Amino acid sequence: MSKIRGSIEIEFPNEEVARVVYESVLFEHKTVPYRRSKLDFSLNGSKIIINFVADDNSALRGTINSYLRWIKVALEITEL
Amino acid sequence: MSKIRGSIEIEFPNEEVARVVYESVLFEHKTVPYRRSKLDFSLNGSKIIINFVADDNSALRGTINSYLRWIKVALEITEL
Repeated sequence: MSKIRGSIEIEFPNEEVARVVYESVLFEHKTVPYRRSKLDFSLNGSKIIINFVADDNSALRGTINSYLRWIKVALEITEL
Repeated sequence: MSKIRGSIEIEFPNEEVARVVYESVLFEHKTVPYRRSKLDFSLNGSKIIINFVADDNSALRGTINSYLRWIKVALEITEL
């Protein structure tokens, strides 16, 4: 497979929500022991920004799925 | 869920491979009857570029999965 680069930007209603979601997912991000895709996970005001580079399409799909799922779960908890 | 924007850039070994893969996936892209994520699918030399905007994290995951899977299958066929 070929080189894949990308970025995903998620805008939250406000900085507080973004920060809470970011910190929850950061915990997961830091505990992933092994990663086949290179990924930066950062917070910028009310936005979470994910930048990635991968050589392997399947690994990248798995990685994107995990991050979007973690973000969703974290956001659902802030809305409880 | 909040607004999600992103782009994914896939670089192929050469323009010919990129074009063949692009055209195969373009067919799928055009036949998707209904889409919950807004998505642009374009070719730029030896790169395929996907830009998207979505309100729904789950729909977006499904969409990204489909495109990356179609690209993978198309690329595997060109390598036969």
